[in-house]
Amino acid sequence: MHSFAKNKLKIYNSLSGKKEIFSPISKEHVGLYVCGPTVYSNVHLGNIRTFTSFDIIFRYLSIIGYNVRYVRNITDVGHLENDEGEDRISKKARVENLEPMEIVQKYTVDFHGTLRKFNLLPPSIEPSATGHIIEQINLIKKLVEKKVAYEKNGSVYFDVINYNKSNNYGILSKRNVDDLIHNTRALDGVTDKKNPQDFALWKKADPEHIMKWDSPWSKGFPGWHLECTAMSSKYLGEKFDIHGGGMDLKFPHHECEIAQSKACFGTNAANYWVHTNMLTLNGSKMSKSTGNNILPSEIFSDGSPLISKIFSESSVKFFMLQAHYRSILDLSNDALLASEKGYLKLMKGIKILEDLNNFSLETSFDIKKWELSCYDSMNDDFNTPILIANIFEAIKFINQVYAGKAYLKKEDKIKLLEIINLFVFKVMGLKKPVLKGDDEKLDKVMNILLKLRNEARNKKNYELSDNIRNLLNENGISINDNDKDSLYSID
Amino acid sequence: MHSFAKNKLKIYNSLSGKKEIFSPISKEHVGLYVCGPTVYSNVHLGNIRTFTSFDIIFRYLSIIGYNVRYVRNITDVGHLENDEGEDRISKKARVENLEPMEIVQKYTVDFHGTLRKFNLLPPSIEPSATGHIIEQINLIKKLVEKKVAYEKNGSVYFDVINYNKSNNYGILSKRNVDDLIHNTRALDGVTDKKNPQDFALWKKADPEHIMKWDSPWSKGFPGWHLECTAMSSKYLGEKFDIHGGGMDLKFPHHECEIAQSKACFGTNAANYWVHTNMLTLNGSKMSKSTGNNILPSEIFSDGSPLISKIFSESSVKFFMLQAHYRSILDLSNDALLASEKGYLKLMKGIKILEDLNNFSLETSFDIKKWELSCYDSMNDDFNTPILIANIFEAIKFINQVYAGKAYLKKEDKIKLLEIINLFVFKVMGLKKPVLKGDDEKLDKVMNILLKLRNEARNKKNYELSDNIRNLLNENGISINDNDKDSLYSID
Repeated sequence: MHSFAKNKLKIYNSLSGKKEIFSPISKEHVGLYVCGPTVYSNVHLGNIRTFTSFDIIFRYLSIIGYNVRYVRNITDVGHLENDEGEDRISKKARVENLEPMEIVQKYTVDFHGTLRKFNLLPPSIEPSATGHIIEQINLIKKLVEKKVAYEKNGSVYFDVINYNKSNNYGILSKRNVDDLIHNTRALDGVTDKKNPQDFALWKKADPEHIMKWDSPWSKGFPGWHLECTAMSSKYLGEKFDIHGGGMDLKFPHHECEIAQSKACFGTNAANYWVHTNMLTLNGSKMSKSTGNNILPSEIFSDGSPLISKIFSESSVKFFMLQAHYRSILDLSNDALLASEKGYLKLMKGIKILEDLNNFSLETSFDIKKWELSCYDSMNDDFNTPILIANIFEAIKFINQVYAGKAYLKKEDKIKLLEIINLFVFKVMGLKKPVLKGDDEKLDKVMNILLKLRNEARNKKNYELSDNIRNLLNENGISINDNDKDSLYSID
Repeated sequence: MHSFAKNKLKIYNSLSGKKEIFSPISKEHVGLYVCGPTVYSNVHLGNIRTFTSFDIIFRYLSIIGYNVRYVRNITDVGHLENDEGEDRISKKARVENLEPMEIVQKYTVDFHGTLRKFNLLPPSIEPSATGHIIEQINLIKKLVEKKVAYEKNGSVYFDVINYNKSNNYGILSKRNVDDLIHNTRALDGVTDKKNPQDFALWKKADPEHIMKWDSPWSKGFPGWHLECTAMSSKYLGEKFDIHGGGMDLKFPHHECEIAQSKACFGTNAANYWVHTNMLTLNGSKMSKSTGNNILPSEIFSDGSPLISKIFSESSVKFFMLQAHYRSILDLSNDALLASEKGYLKLMKGIKILEDLNNFSLETSFDIKKWELSCYDSMNDDFNTPILIANIFEAIKFINQVYAGKAYLKKEDKIKLLEIINLFVFKVMGLKKPVLKGDDEKLDKVMNILLKLRNEARNKKNYELSDNIRNLLNENGISINDNDKDSLYSID
């Protein structure tokens, strides 16, 4: 439907280090794989940023006419601390005195709930590591056959040095295996690895370990890097279009995935590797230990000394979209306040356009050109900040029309609204601050109040109109009298 | 905390056909397994009734002091049509032109979304059949070893006749194997089964079948009945406390589960087997083909010729709870209208109690005795209709206090409210029609309007007070002037 934009899309490919014209393997279909969460704790804001970025990529690809199969996994076993230590979920299970799969369920429910509040779409398939043990065992067998993996004491490791003899371990992260060897701390003696940069494909489980399965090597569990190779190849094929994840996954996780795929299938898994950048807080990395940390629950309901008020998910999402996904984004109270203001300004502009009914015979705005610039911004590696700037051009025009300083034809109102709705609600997935359902009721009641107040003012009954305004203010509801329709916003 | 009720709980056990005192295997813990949905279509109202019933059982067991591990599975492979035909998910995948796992994801998302609207709690663990292929293969190996299963052309079947020689196939459903043999239609020649009542443990997959795994017998997939044995034994042990499901699962599904468990572990799997009854529509079974059918989406948003208005999830949930889970429940427009009325009456009564501030020195209601009767109703096989009747006793008293015809001490208001809140919101999981969040805002705005109206009436400004009432009525909001606080309800 918007497929004219199809051939113009450029994506920054971490593999080549360049923006490239996007050319999918099949003309109509796109395979998109994104590394999902390890469900051993509540989702944090950095995760939310990553998944929001890929949600928009998923949405945009679909809107410009691709049939996208979006696979985002759930890591529910095998993600080891420091790539070699304890399984994160098993450890949390011990701490919380629960079964590992209870931990998985608890934090999967949290993850889905939070993403829903951000209005992210569910992926097409959401496979889990424990659901693909057989597939992972089969891949390990292949890797052992090909002599890029070796067994030691029931565990199996990927042999990076052997692999690197005829391949390039470091192709994605631009690291050099020799440097890696020199810069990696010496093995501490408790590992079965030949070399420190080798990574686990299968770990023999301790007797007390709950999450374990039979395998040709031991009762154990798969290593973290393997699950994504197993699931992406199963659902998207041995070679697919886009593989995404947070920048922190580039090395070692994605480097290992490429090594596994290359050794098994002779491919780099995906043609385009896409990485989202970090979210910092007041200029520094978030960290629990230094206290420079803020939780989603603190922003959205509980409060924190680091913020002056509670923010809605929509405001925070708008804040995230105001930066390009490959830029570092710094969260601060001021930035959130500014984003909230911008978000409400945008929504009020849309509401003004929706309600607009004084039309002209001409339109003093080049809608076609403006529409193309919206597509251009998204086609330029999904550049949402430029898209937002473009949309504010239209909002500026709308406000001018409203003030009688610009002109809009009736037919063009519909066209303009359609394009704005497409980019704001379908592509970026923002939500209106006044929702359908319960808030329709709120709208009804608010409209009654505003009507009463306007009637009172028309009759110069200022006692009543002031009374209404004061009662609203006491309840955190402000009315904007500059708007003819008395728009309101509620904290 | 409410553990005095622990030893009084009686549960109807389908296995014995009697109500029995509930005595869990471990004093503090309860293992509860409920057969979850086969995710190949949108959840229907009968499913919702079943899962609502078990949600309340889960909640009540937790409230009276048990640490409940509630496992409810997702069937994402192997549920065959008529127990022998095509895999339901694979078939739907073909119809919808999607990958089977895309079907699984689509309808799992629908299932979770619908249950959330009904305010059901997520289970402790929600395992899937595809996540437990290895466990199922291991069980089949055991069954083959024990000679109650045989392989034929790559598929493996449970040998009911051989099993029945030293066991009782039919122990749950009270069926007799010999009758079964005589009443089952002859094998049609395309099956590999020795006898028609044998059931599949493993099915060899056709070459074009997507969902298949390696096994000692063939590339194939597990039969439906096996997954529940694999997952319940993995997460709750070979013998656990309660196994639940819809009555339609008693035979063959649960009968087969018992046979599998008995053969593998020598147990009936669970000590208590609990089955929920059917939901009918206007006196007959729901059926798509006869048109005597109504979808959740039709009741909650789209409408249907069979109902006169849209109903909220809360009203429908209240309707379901007004019948005992073991009774057939007939849905009709009149029944829903009556339930909606009852639900609002209940919620208004609670609001009156919350706002009550004219107290006496005595209380003319035996709260202690009434509280015990609430527990007694739940202890009598989770009898929610009796519980609701008990709660309406208290509501009647509250309305009398409000009308000055009964007496309540200040301390007793707190006690009464606590008990009502426990049973209405924690045990039955009902939601207040005015919710926190957005509806708090609605409440604020409504309160402003009602305050303005009361002020106007006090000043005998009937023009304004009538104007407010009329504006509200025009918007479907009615105010009840019999209530001092002018309670309102919104359609």
